[in-house]
Amino acid sequence: MPPDTASWPTARLCAFVADLDFEQIPPRVVDVAKGLMIDWLGSALAGKGARQVEIIEGFARAMGPADGPSTVIPTRRRTSPYFAAMVNAAASHAVEQDDVHNGSVFHPATVIFPPVLAVAEAEAKTGREMLTACIAGYEVGIRVGEFLGRSHYETFHTTGTVGAVAAAAAVGKLIGLDASGLNHALGSAGTQAAGLWEFLRDAADSKQLHTARAAANGLFAACLARDGFRGAARILEGKKGMAAGMSHDADPTRLTDGLGSRWATEETSFKWHASCRHTHPAADALQRLMRSEGLGPEDVATVVTHVHQGAIDVLGAVDIPQTVHQAKFSMGTVLGLIAVHGVADLDAFERHALADAGVARFRSKVRMALDAEVDALYPRRWVGKVSITTVDGRQLEARVDEPKGDPGNTLARQELEAKAVRLAEFGGAATAEEMRACMSRIWSLDQPGSPADLFANAGGGRGPPPSGGREHAVGDQRVHGRGETRLGRG
Amino acid sequence: MPPDTASWPTARLCAFVADLDFEQIPPRVVDVAKGLMIDWLGSALAGKGARQVEIIEGFARAMGPADGPSTVIPTRRRTSPYFAAMVNAAASHAVEQDDVHNGSVFHPATVIFPPVLAVAEAEAKTGREMLTACIAGYEVGIRVGEFLGRSHYETFHTTGTVGAVAAAAAVGKLIGLDASGLNHALGSAGTQAAGLWEFLRDAADSKQLHTARAAANGLFAACLARDGFRGAARILEGKKGMAAGMSHDADPTRLTDGLGSRWATEETSFKWHASCRHTHPAADALQRLMRSEGLGPEDVATVVTHVHQGAIDVLGAVDIPQTVHQAKFSMGTVLGLIAVHGVADLDAFERHALADAGVARFRSKVRMALDAEVDALYPRRWVGKVSITTVDGRQLEARVDEPKGDPGNTLARQELEAKAVRLAEFGGAATAEEMRACMSRIWSLDQPGSPADLFANAGGGRGPPPSGGREHAVGDQRVHGRGETRLGRG
Repeated sequence: MPPDTASWPTARLCAFVADLDFEQIPPRVVDVAKGLMIDWLGSALAGKGARQVEIIEGFARAMGPADGPSTVIPTRRRTSPYFAAMVNAAASHAVEQDDVHNGSVFHPATVIFPPVLAVAEAEAKTGREMLTACIAGYEVGIRVGEFLGRSHYETFHTTGTVGAVAAAAAVGKLIGLDASGLNHALGSAGTQAAGLWEFLRDAADSKQLHTARAAANGLFAACLARDGFRGAARILEGKKGMAAGMSHDADPTRLTDGLGSRWATEETSFKWHASCRHTHPAADALQRLMRSEGLGPEDVATVVTHVHQGAIDVLGAVDIPQTVHQAKFSMGTVLGLIAVHGVADLDAFERHALADAGVARFRSKVRMALDAEVDALYPRRWVGKVSITTVDGRQLEARVDEPKGDPGNTLARQELEAKAVRLAEFGGAATAEEMRACMSRIWSLDQPGSPADLFANAGGGRGPPPSGGREHAVGDQRVHGRGETRLGRG
Repeated sequence: MPPDTASWPTARLCAFVADLDFEQIPPRVVDVAKGLMIDWLGSALAGKGARQVEIIEGFARAMGPADGPSTVIPTRRRTSPYFAAMVNAAASHAVEQDDVHNGSVFHPATVIFPPVLAVAEAEAKTGREMLTACIAGYEVGIRVGEFLGRSHYETFHTTGTVGAVAAAAAVGKLIGLDASGLNHALGSAGTQAAGLWEFLRDAADSKQLHTARAAANGLFAACLARDGFRGAARILEGKKGMAAGMSHDADPTRLTDGLGSRWATEETSFKWHASCRHTHPAADALQRLMRSEGLGPEDVATVVTHVHQGAIDVLGAVDIPQTVHQAKFSMGTVLGLIAVHGVADLDAFERHALADAGVARFRSKVRMALDAEVDALYPRRWVGKVSITTVDGRQLEARVDEPKGDPGNTLARQELEAKAVRLAEFGGAATAEEMRACMSRIWSLDQPGSPADLFANAGGGRGPPPSGGREHAVGDQRVHGRGETRLGRG
């Protein structure tokens, strides 16, 4: 390789991950990571029963081994790490409650935690190793998303494309790849990166397919690299790499921005409403205005949400939603739920998003308008601005600079845990008691010697599956305890 | 959906596939398809022992079931259709002898035959069903490649991106999806489409990863569609679809060009030299000129190959090749093999591409120059033009309008079979006798009642594996005979 290899942004990113040591990570960042893991686990459990998830799980049952070391979270059955990562990543993104990083417009949790947990279970990693790997995935994925820029997100679903790279970095860190190995892993992941927004207009199921593929492909790439499979050295910034093919405003300086001093992990936002993040700033602004003015939904004649172009691109495809999932991408529906029912959480969507006349009436009053200031601040800040005209002719305005769940307006621990329990119970995947036991284990993951095991006391686990699982001995694939199965060959 | 749905190009393509009946296909096209299958099987067997293939196969062993209905061709072990398709697609592209369609710059065989065979084995399809499905895959994939145009191929490896769509169409046809189901399958395949050329400069292993992923992803997409998973309706031509994200000269009229009258399958070229197809026209022209003039390699002072831009894009990354695979993308090496050894076949590459002083000397005499006429004809025609300056000062020129293996200069059946036997024997994956038995079965696949089974009399088969395979009973995944395993749920 040429002498300047080590100075390439991708190489510097890989060196950072290879050198990352748990002791270097500020405790506040570790705490955020644990909160993000709890928030994610809730989302993964909430995916139980979602049609898209069940179909992907059916494929995993047909094509993958009937037992293995890794947990399929919604059903608690076990299979190989590859299929566990695939199904869990689909499940985690089904109810649109998983986290988001503003500046990169990237949902890290759904593509990073599933492959890391699946491999950690298979290879008996510690809690600290798992946390370090996940933080590595966040730091890489967020920077790659920022690097690819707004033009990428116009056509590509960043969580699908960048997700494969983030998952490869995280799993690569977990299995101990050095900088060169990580570079090969990123090369193999980046050349698998895919995910187009076209599905939105049809209410198709691709969003969960994207996260499933990203998580599984990233795991695949990292395992291949461990076995000597070579990837492109400059898959991100090279002349025929991701930016060349899928962006026209890429900024390579973002790939290494503040490595080791800036912790992008802690910039990640928790989603409070159960909808596309692009609806949240306006939802919060509307909620504030209606509360402060004492308005009911029938007091409102029209609502204009002043938004960034990305919101129009993603939400503009939906007119009258046909499915609950599509309703989460309908600005008018989200604002209607807030106006009529005061909340836009999972239950509100299930019960009121499609057939509620009041919500439908409010939806018809809402339109989006591009706002130069909001657009200029985006994606670094997601500002909410709404204008209401009341039926009695008043013009009212409100603004929210940090939607609820953003780092400057984050969830209290109690809110975070309550949200996670609601998610866990939503599809019957876990009881509140089970979820509390899982959360307790996660809060302790950074204790020395803590195993990377979320479910040992939460039903399922090593014993018989809690419900409906068909488990079979699988020849040489049976796992008698942790640490006996190594991924890849050998 | 809007009323004009059925007129969308993607919808018309899907309707064509859904309606395609074996009886409609001209016998000469069926004959070509059988020849392409023989040619492909040789390539799949020749992948045995290739490092990239062994690593991917190691992943399949670790993550997939240890038994199943589908054959992993290089080793003749059995696993689930998903992993058989994945490994076989990697294997088929390892030695760069698989077919190519000029106009689309797409290698159909390596991404279409593996998933179709894997599913045909699992679901007891007939030879006619398999041939029809493969032809459907060729007709779709070639048109999608043509549609995406030259700008796509500048950055994207069309066989990786389009391959997923072609595989989905082929498997979707095989498992009996209707037009709507095929549209969903294409939507899920297109949103997984990936593969960047960046790997070429590093001699990385991504080319086989691309074919592995395309075949497996296409199979995945078709199986998902059968179970009701929805894909974008206009993934090819839609505003946020493949062309929007990955091309700037897409031509939607190409998607439906001559459907039912033009058979793109029969336009496919067989590769004669074991190198990147972009080297073939110049190799043939050089060979013709040196023979007609009675030149030896030391008589030649310089060679200029007059090429299209695509050749410079793909081959320009390689200066002095470091691996045999990279040597196949080195114009100078290919021409050196032709000049010094008279052939650029698999053995010549293995023995002479890297360490032969005469080949290296000839390589240093070769340069590429963009030629306006050649570039204008490309990709419809791949014209070879070379200029030689001899050491005694003569200026000589030669031109080849159809490189050997093109439809107008195709292989005789004897040449085709001899090439396939050489490929089968190359890595010890099959004996000449086994390969002849396989070829005999393929030539008879269109006989009524012929099963889609290539290996029954060719070693391996249902009995114990021929060498080194570890086979275990796999709980409920053991397959006692054909037709007992259905893909997907159910």
